[in-house]
Amino acid sequence: MEPDIVRKMSSPTPPKRFEGFNYTALKRFLFGEPFPTSKEHHERLDKIRALAVFASDPISSNAYATEAIMSILVLIGSAALSLTMPIALGIAALILLIVFSYTQTIMHYPGGGGAYIVARDNLGTLPSLLAGAALLTDYVLTVSVSVSAGVRAITSAFPAVHDYRVLLAVLAIGLITWANLRGIRESGTIFAFPTYAFVGGVALVIIIGLVRYFGLFGAAPLVSSAPPVAAGGQPVVSLAYTWLILRAFAAGCTALTGIEAISDGVQAFKKPEARNAAITMMVMGGMAMSLFIGITFLATHLHLVPRAEDSILSQMTRTVTGGGFLYYWVQAFTTLILILAANTGFQDFPRLGSFLARDGFLPRWIQNRGDRLVFNYGILLLAFVASVLVIIFRADEIKMLPLYALGVMISFTISQTSMAKLMSKVGQVPPGETVQTKATTIHYEAGWRWKQALSVIGAFTTGVVLLILIVTKFTHGAWIVILAVTLLIWGFRAIRGHYDRVAEALSTRNFSLDNVLDIADVVIIPMADVHRGTLRALKYACRLSNDVRAVSVITSEENKERFMRRWNRFPELTEHVKLVLIEYDFRDILEPLVAYIQHVNEVECPHQMTTIVVPEFVPSSIWAHFLHNQTANILRFRLRGYKDIVVIDVPYHL
Amino acid sequence: MEPDIVRKMSSPTPPKRFEGFNYTALKRFLFGEPFPTSKEHHERLDKIRALAVFASDPISSNAYATEAIMSILVLIGSAALSLTMPIALGIAALILLIVFSYTQTIMHYPGGGGAYIVARDNLGTLPSLLAGAALLTDYVLTVSVSVSAGVRAITSAFPAVHDYRVLLAVLAIGLITWANLRGIRESGTIFAFPTYAFVGGVALVIIIGLVRYFGLFGAAPLVSSAPPVAAGGQPVVSLAYTWLILRAFAAGCTALTGIEAISDGVQAFKKPEARNAAITMMVMGGMAMSLFIGITFLATHLHLVPRAEDSILSQMTRTVTGGGFLYYWVQAFTTLILILAANTGFQDFPRLGSFLARDGFLPRWIQNRGDRLVFNYGILLLAFVASVLVIIFRADEIKMLPLYALGVMISFTISQTSMAKLMSKVGQVPPGETVQTKATTIHYEAGWRWKQALSVIGAFTTGVVLLILIVTKFTHGAWIVILAVTLLIWGFRAIRGHYDRVAEALSTRNFSLDNVLDIADVVIIPMADVHRGTLRALKYACRLSNDVRAVSVITSEENKERFMRRWNRFPELTEHVKLVLIEYDFRDILEPLVAYIQHVNEVECPHQMTTIVVPEFVPSSIWAHFLHNQTANILRFRLRGYKDIVVIDVPYHL
Repeated sequence: MEPDIVRKMSSPTPPKRFEGFNYTALKRFLFGEPFPTSKEHHERLDKIRALAVFASDPISSNAYATEAIMSILVLIGSAALSLTMPIALGIAALILLIVFSYTQTIMHYPGGGGAYIVARDNLGTLPSLLAGAALLTDYVLTVSVSVSAGVRAITSAFPAVHDYRVLLAVLAIGLITWANLRGIRESGTIFAFPTYAFVGGVALVIIIGLVRYFGLFGAAPLVSSAPPVAAGGQPVVSLAYTWLILRAFAAGCTALTGIEAISDGVQAFKKPEARNAAITMMVMGGMAMSLFIGITFLATHLHLVPRAEDSILSQMTRTVTGGGFLYYWVQAFTTLILILAANTGFQDFPRLGSFLARDGFLPRWIQNRGDRLVFNYGILLLAFVASVLVIIFRADEIKMLPLYALGVMISFTISQTSMAKLMSKVGQVPPGETVQTKATTIHYEAGWRWKQALSVIGAFTTGVVLLILIVTKFTHGAWIVILAVTLLIWGFRAIRGHYDRVAEALSTRNFSLDNVLDIADVVIIPMADVHRGTLRALKYACRLSNDVRAVSVITSEENKERFMRRWNRFPELTEHVKLVLIEYDFRDILEPLVAYIQHVNEVECPHQMTTIVVPEFVPSSIWAHFLHNQTANILRFRLRGYKDIVVIDVPYHL
Repeated sequence: MEPDIVRKMSSPTPPKRFEGFNYTALKRFLFGEPFPTSKEHHERLDKIRALAVFASDPISSNAYATEAIMSILVLIGSAALSLTMPIALGIAALILLIVFSYTQTIMHYPGGGGAYIVARDNLGTLPSLLAGAALLTDYVLTVSVSVSAGVRAITSAFPAVHDYRVLLAVLAIGLITWANLRGIRESGTIFAFPTYAFVGGVALVIIIGLVRYFGLFGAAPLVSSAPPVAAGGQPVVSLAYTWLILRAFAAGCTALTGIEAISDGVQAFKKPEARNAAITMMVMGGMAMSLFIGITFLATHLHLVPRAEDSILSQMTRTVTGGGFLYYWVQAFTTLILILAANTGFQDFPRLGSFLARDGFLPRWIQNRGDRLVFNYGILLLAFVASVLVIIFRADEIKMLPLYALGVMISFTISQTSMAKLMSKVGQVPPGETVQTKATTIHYEAGWRWKQALSVIGAFTTGVVLLILIVTKFTHGAWIVILAVTLLIWGFRAIRGHYDRVAEALSTRNFSLDNVLDIADVVIIPMADVHRGTLRALKYACRLSNDVRAVSVITSEENKERFMRRWNRFPELTEHVKLVLIEYDFRDILEPLVAYIQHVNEVECPHQMTTIVVPEFVPSSIWAHFLHNQTANILRFRLRGYKDIVVIDVPYHL
């Protein structure tokens, strides 16, 4: 027969549910009307907006990266704070290297080249899973760290709310979650204003600061908030000293997070996508670097000292501007850009999760999209895990930072190793031809050797930094990340194994319908009592088979008499039915019932499907459920364990 | 056909469930092997044990009743504490009256004469519901108050644990709940020792106290813990003063609680039940009265003052004994008897609840008995409500006392009014004949007039006391009880109304099988994909009907192609099936599916039962459920709202 094809393109109408509470209406109110699948389109971004979208994460790290370095160095002594600047310069160099390396990735994976995809294309499954696990943990941390830092920007301005920071952070996550479930996606306009307002505000503060610091244009020189460090000679260069400097460097590496996001989202750019993305990436890198160095310069030269209740950026802004309008501007947009940075976690995590789910490494439902075409489950999962982190760490992003940046450094290393591998392939393509890999198309490039060298240098450098991060941060929380990543990889493989076994078990290849079990003639209908509902079910059962057995568990003589009296009222139906009465001396009447069913299924009709007709009484209101035994539901649950039992629910509504 | 009767008397074997976790084994471990229904028997109690069982509740009130009076009087001033003794004497007289009145009830309702049953037999439904509601609230309070007072006895001895009293109280409730679920019932031996140990200990303290107080046998006179009250003349007798005295009297009425319990449990006595019960009741009344007056006498003459962290009984015992072995003995057995008193709540509440459930005023499952023949749900309900009360009142029984005793006084009044009514009937029975009421058998009694007079006096007195209780305690929490009782009565009637309507709707009287809907030929099988599981279900569907329609919701071209490719692999099955493909542009594929089913059910086959075959994939472990969409479950849930849709689950296990 030819299939009937029905086309249903109209918006779905809410189904009627139990009266009184319309779940669908509430859902529509909270999250809006569903979008049709076909309406999905990526709004293409021009460079200005794209910069705003992608820069919010890396640029927002300026709110805390300098502080992260300083809060380690201050452990040596406030004299050591002068080392902040050299360390910041080293990190800035690293940003430069990574930006250049990633432009390569963008040019070669215009369809999207996140570390997971690039590694799977070049290095195989395990490295790609490592990259995937590392990035997932990092995206969770992006949310927890950014939201906590955003809340700190508020509590720095209004110290009175400091005690409520955990609550505020969780509420902020809830708000971002809600917005993302509604489907506020990479809509550049929302991002553009706060990002540029933050960049502009901080840049202005830096310029004013520098002008005042150097007394340019006749400005009154800034008075340092602390007296210059007593010149007590250089501290002794010891092992412990080197260790703390390495730790400070590792802490500053948080400034590197978020740089890789563009490589995943090349398709969001206007044509020529790859070129525009590469240019945007370079501008973004330049911006992030300048702000980072500017803030670090002022913070160290103004002799600021990290304090729990007032961030370095806030101290610096207050010192430079004296606490007026510009101060509140910078604080407000610091909060906003940090929350937007958290929002990028809500973009990246569900997307990467859906890739992993598509490949069977995460539960398949992670890739299900909701009414608004977003990955609802990925969003909710991220919100849950990030909230748990925020609660555990009491919304203190400085405590969370040792966990951060580790994942992104793993992904940098893997991604650039993959690119080095890809370049070998590029060098082997005969000129004029193209070769198709799993995820992209390559052709011969004359400069493949130096591009490969760049990737190797990048991979090596980030690899070394990764080692430094692991070693220095290990006892401060990095072990959590390593444990999480290990468990995630183990989980990915276990899930994939399960899906493979299921697919194997369900496969229709080499499958013959003869393998499907026969259906036994016997139909069993449990009947606690004879009433309109069970009679209806009995009539249904009699339609199915000539061997219908009504089974009733009898717990008292009175119970039996009443049953038989009612049973005999309907001879035209019951005379075709074999009645089995089980006299039972315990209260759990389902036990002998299940035992009887099991006996019929396994002994009387082995290797056949046995049918059970369950009369089910459906009360009119959801509250009335509390007034009735849930026998039908419990029976269905108990029968789930039996392979060859088919359960038929015959409902009876009042 | 003659029914097959299977007798299954052996102990049930635990059914196999999902692997890994055996719920039944855990249940057996915690609560023991199930008892057969036929093994139920009430252990008959001799008077010594019966006294212990039933006296624990009324005698335990001695732990706090005197204190309850004093903590009101102290509000007037410590001089007013001397009024404690006259008030206690008034309450003792009330105990005497009630004890005598209840012996009447016991003699006339040897089958059990709780206020609910006696009122239903004589006054009608509404008064019986009032008595039932009042007693239910009081039994809850018995548990909360007794456990809290028991914990206070511990914290009086060990003040260090005072901060953990709420936790201790909830743990104690949990322990009693567990014991009751295991089925520790009126086993006299458990009760006998702590009850007599408490009575003996307190009696000894009172005797030593009196001996020392009066300096008898040459004993050194007791030094009062406080100096004698400054003789400042009598306080002015004002309205406020009278009010506080009434309040103190009302507070002391907690000593009356628990007296009625014997009337419910007459059947627990050895023959002649009624006579033994009546004698026991009188002894119990005498005991409770003596202790109450003894404690009150010493407490007032030693000038003790109520303190939150040290109970009056504890202060008195310490003063009299100097805090040695006898002190810890009394404290220990105070705790134990209070916990035993709480245990009587666990006897009375589920029993009364089951009476109400049997008559359809509470959910029917309240009368379901568990493996150990106890009313599991009643026990759990009581434990839950009592714990909530303990948490709300921070385990402070003095704060809860204004709520207490109100319910029992309502039931006294109703019970005695019922008895007065019954006596009118008794007077009208022709001598030598018997008349059967709903709950007992009566015959003419010569002294019915004076017995009726006693009941009227009892009803009047307890009625007046009830008014005093309501008026004086109203703003201190009695309003909560009145509100709760009102809501309970409303709930009883609503539940009964529901059951009446259900019984009406299910009734087989005047019901013809022709009224049962026909069954439509069409069988619909939703198929997301073609695999072994859905093919098995399809084969099952084809067995049921010749008009099978496989419905698949198609969300993409790729999805459609794959479906058709697999579909066409099994022409021998699929050529008999009509395939309906619904192209749908949203993600919630159940919506068009339900809409299609609804259309077939309402338009194509109106007034017929439509059958839906749902292929259900059952993963091997419970964890694997998280890896699969719950589509079958959600579909079943959504279809519940439709009256004439029969759902067939065809499981496919891996």
